[in-house]
Amino acid sequence: MPGSVAQMKIISTERIGVLGIPFSKGQSRVGTEYGPEVLRNGGIVRKLQNLGCHVKDHGDVEVIHVENDDPEENAKNPRTVGQTSKLIADKVEQVLRSDDICVTLGGDHSMAIGCIAGNARVEPDLVVLWIDAHADINTPMTSDSGNIHGMPLSFLVHELESYVPKLPGFEWLSPCIHAKDIAYIGLRDVDAGERKIIEKFGITAFSMQEVDKYGINEVVERALRAVDPEGKRPIHLSFDVDAMDPTLTPSTGTPVIGGLSLRETYYIAEEVARTGRLSMVDVAEVNPLLGDDKDKKLTVDMTISVIQRFFGNRRGGCYPPGYDIPLPHNLTTR
Amino acid sequence: MPGSVAQMKIISTERIGVLGIPFSKGQSRVGTEYGPEVLRNGGIVRKLQNLGCHVKDHGDVEVIHVENDDPEENAKNPRTVGQTSKLIADKVEQVLRSDDICVTLGGDHSMAIGCIAGNARVEPDLVVLWIDAHADINTPMTSDSGNIHGMPLSFLVHELESYVPKLPGFEWLSPCIHAKDIAYIGLRDVDAGERKIIEKFGITAFSMQEVDKYGINEVVERALRAVDPEGKRPIHLSFDVDAMDPTLTPSTGTPVIGGLSLRETYYIAEEVARTGRLSMVDVAEVNPLLGDDKDKKLTVDMTISVIQRFFGNRRGGCYPPGYDIPLPHNLTTR
Amino acid sequence: MPGSVAQMKIISTERIGVLGIPFSKGQSRVGTEYGPEVLRNGGIVRKLQNLGCHVKDHGDVEVIHVENDDPEENAKNPRTVGQTSKLIADKVEQVLRSDDICVTLGGDHSMAIGCIAGNARVEPDLVVLWIDAHADINTPMTSDSGNIHGMPLSFLVHELESYVPKLPGFEWLSPCIHAKDIAYIGLRDVDAGERKIIEKFGITAFSMQEVDKYGINEVVERALRAVDPEGKRPIHLSFDVDAMDPTLTPSTGTPVIGGLSLRETYYIAEEVARTGRLSMVDVAEVNPLLGDDKDKKLTVDMTISVIQRFFGNRRGGCYPPGYDIPLPHNLTTR
Ligand SMILES: [Mn+2]
Ligand SMILES: [Mn+2]
Ligand SMILES: [Mn+2]
Ligand SMILES: [Mn+2]
Ligand SMILES: [Mn+2]
Ligand SMILES: [Mn+2]
Repeated sequence: MPGSVAQMKIISTERIGVLGIPFSKGQSRVGTEYGPEVLRNGGIVRKLQNLGCHVKDHGDVEVIHVENDDPEENAKNPRTVGQTSKLIADKVEQVLRSDDICVTLGGDHSMAIGCIAGNARVEPDLVVLWIDAHADINTPMTSDSGNIHGMPLSFLVHELESYVPKLPGFEWLSPCIHAKDIAYIGLRDVDAGERKIIEKFGITAFSMQEVDKYGINEVVERALRAVDPEGKRPIHLSFDVDAMDPTLTPSTGTPVIGGLSLRETYYIAEEVARTGRLSMVDVAEVNPLLGDDKDKKLTVDMTISVIQRFFGNRRGGCYPPGYDIPLPHNLTTR
Repeated sequence: MPGSVAQMKIISTERIGVLGIPFSKGQSRVGTEYGPEVLRNGGIVRKLQNLGCHVKDHGDVEVIHVENDDPEENAKNPRTVGQTSKLIADKVEQVLRSDDICVTLGGDHSMAIGCIAGNARVEPDLVVLWIDAHADINTPMTSDSGNIHGMPLSFLVHELESYVPKLPGFEWLSPCIHAKDIAYIGLRDVDAGERKIIEKFGITAFSMQEVDKYGINEVVERALRAVDPEGKRPIHLSFDVDAMDPTLTPSTGTPVIGGLSLRETYYIAEEVARTGRLSMVDVAEVNPLLGDDKDKKLTVDMTISVIQRFFGNRRGGCYPPGYDIPLPHNLTTR
Repeated sequence: MPGSVAQMKIISTERIGVLGIPFSKGQSRVGTEYGPEVLRNGGIVRKLQNLGCHVKDHGDVEVIHVENDDPEENAKNPRTVGQTSKLIADKVEQVLRSDDICVTLGGDHSMAIGCIAGNARVEPDLVVLWIDAHADINTPMTSDSGNIHGMPLSFLVHELESYVPKLPGFEWLSPCIHAKDIAYIGLRDVDAGERKIIEKFGITAFSMQEVDKYGINEVVERALRAVDPEGKRPIHLSFDVDAMDPTLTPSTGTPVIGGLSLRETYYIAEEVARTGRLSMVDVAEVNPLLGDDKDKKLTVDMTISVIQRFFGNRRGGCYPPGYDIPLPHNLTTR
């Protein structure tokens, strides 16, 4: 049948391990624990398979809910977040030892503690691209809210070790990345302590102001070059859906107007895909309990369409190796 | 009266021939045959006249509906599309022999077969700018759907002649352009066969990825230079309204998210207008039976506002030759 | 308390004087006289204070309604507009002699006559950035509508003095700026007379076409350099909310599609803030009687969020002078 080849828009033959993280205790709202469910129901596995990827769904990671988990040093639910993060790290490590790339479906963005820690066990030389409206690098001491989803990077960065109190539940965790290994894209709501940390330790940060100034093209190029000038280190991409404009991903807990367009987000994903060094993608902060049915569907659809771009759904088209234009039937015997 | 001159936002004195193509048999949905009607009802003729253009409405081209028009070589309605395309070509030629520029109001995008064939009889040296989410260069053999609106360019390009089977209804047609005479802008849903054709024959193609990378400014400049480095050939512009983002032109059959903004589409039109070499504009794929009343009105309004930009409705303003700032009445006798 | 410092997103310590201009007689629609009220109810004063600014609300300027104010030389309500403009100028001068920066809340854009005249008494070397879909530089003789909100700059520019008839109510006013002191950003509906004036007297004008061509980054840089190559003159910024796209600020009298995005408008405000030479911001053409409740709220929210950017609400974050990252309590005694 003539159409059978044309249908394949593949460039990807990667083995992808999908892992759900039904967790919401890194922040105060109910709902992000249903993120994995709505992304699966939205067809994320099938849509990646349609691109030619070998996808294995590893189910959901186990999450722990500690009773009477009182705040410590201003951080809320420390034992719950810390112990769950350990389980996430273990499971991520396990997935990455069998598959090429791990896609985690969150869950609030505290999930990145376990995801990056687990990835770093397999890929100790990884760099982090953090796509988010927020810097998520508050220490417990600089945070206003005490929500750990605004702090994950502070637990992971060597340079911040002396600024972060030892919290119950986090005994297992040691820093695994350096400030210079992180690049932000999409920032537009950055706290004073976060700004100070970014400047003091020289973290690469492209707020929306820089996206407007340089264009997404130059921002992505600069971000990749800043964290890895030789272009050979594995990439951990942590994608908070609130990086995108709230008109695109409204069902999220801390939306901020003036975000990335769909096309800009696609562009980031495509350029990261093109490196061939993507190790892991976190998908954080989808909250299907926020907004109406239309908001929820839009958020899920936009999120999945972005995830697809990390795996070869190129806008300019592509074709399988060895493919050539078929001749008409009446000419094939010539 | 003081206002009478200010009202004129003209730079255009061209004679424009408008031609409706109420046709939908190049694809499977009912509705594009009402495109000419809703564009006329939306005021396209009057709005071009307001710019100072001399507009003549040549009415609708006759369309043919062949009974029992079975698919041939995977192509649907071949006799209906082929025979109608011949009538379109004849009528377009006739309009272009009397007016400066022909604007065809479709109709599905299979209309471009007749439009380009007819234009090429008058302007054999024409180049084609194809503004579309789709490449519309499938051969009958590479098409999934068998809908000819996804194939028009394959019938027109010399290099593809041996790849395209002879279909009933198309006996009158010979290729009239070369692969190097085509430039795409706006692509974001390109089939494998199409991608192969683009690469194999060196067609200039700017997908939305390239628009994001280079900016619309550089894309338009590169596209024009690629097909006509010396800047002296007539331009056939084929405009599929699905090139624009579906939030702007929702009433169309194959919308694809992540499209051209209104401003980017304006920019294309203005730059083409500025060349002074526009020969013809096709307006394809307006389908007023899709979406609700608001979608339909939006689609028509956006489409017409873009068409106006091809004829001198400059955003920076303009004034008629010889115009000067009027003096107050009490000063004019000084 | 750990959060208390992080909460401060200040870089501004400026003293801001807010002044309402409840006026609508520069155009034909009722409603802009309620602009100051809805902007205050939207929290503009408090939101500027939250940034660390010292804000004083000077209340509303007195507006004059002259009975039987017949058109003169095509200009409508000349005495009402002219006499009110004098009161505006007097009050603006008074505010600027006590505070650092004056923010005027309009009101239709005829308010700029008094605002710029008043500012020029205190800052005779000022330059004008005019952010608007419209050029607002029609003379009474070139205007179609006769509405003075489309003419304010014509009364203020030396070069136009002989083209502008002496109107009743304007006896007090003399031109105070030169054509070369003005830069436009956002134009997309420019009358023939306005275009001629722009070209004849060399006014710097960036229409949306130029924004698309060069990008907002380069447009802002060029605009600032064009009016003040040495970067030392005070800036009067006149912001018509119709500069933004009507999807963002729908509640305005003369919306034009294809406008500035929120991010582009932020960018303008941030770059102007960064100069440290902002003298005054006019906020014009908010009309809460147009559109539904959602439109009105959106218009007010978008407008206020832009105004905040003029006073240090940087998207990349900031921290107070002398701030450092706090150490955990258990470490502070080390
Ligand atoms: Mn976030
Ligand atoms: Mn986050
Ligand atoms: Mn199309
Ligand atoms: Mn098409
Ligand atoms: Mn305006
Ligand atoms: Mn205005």
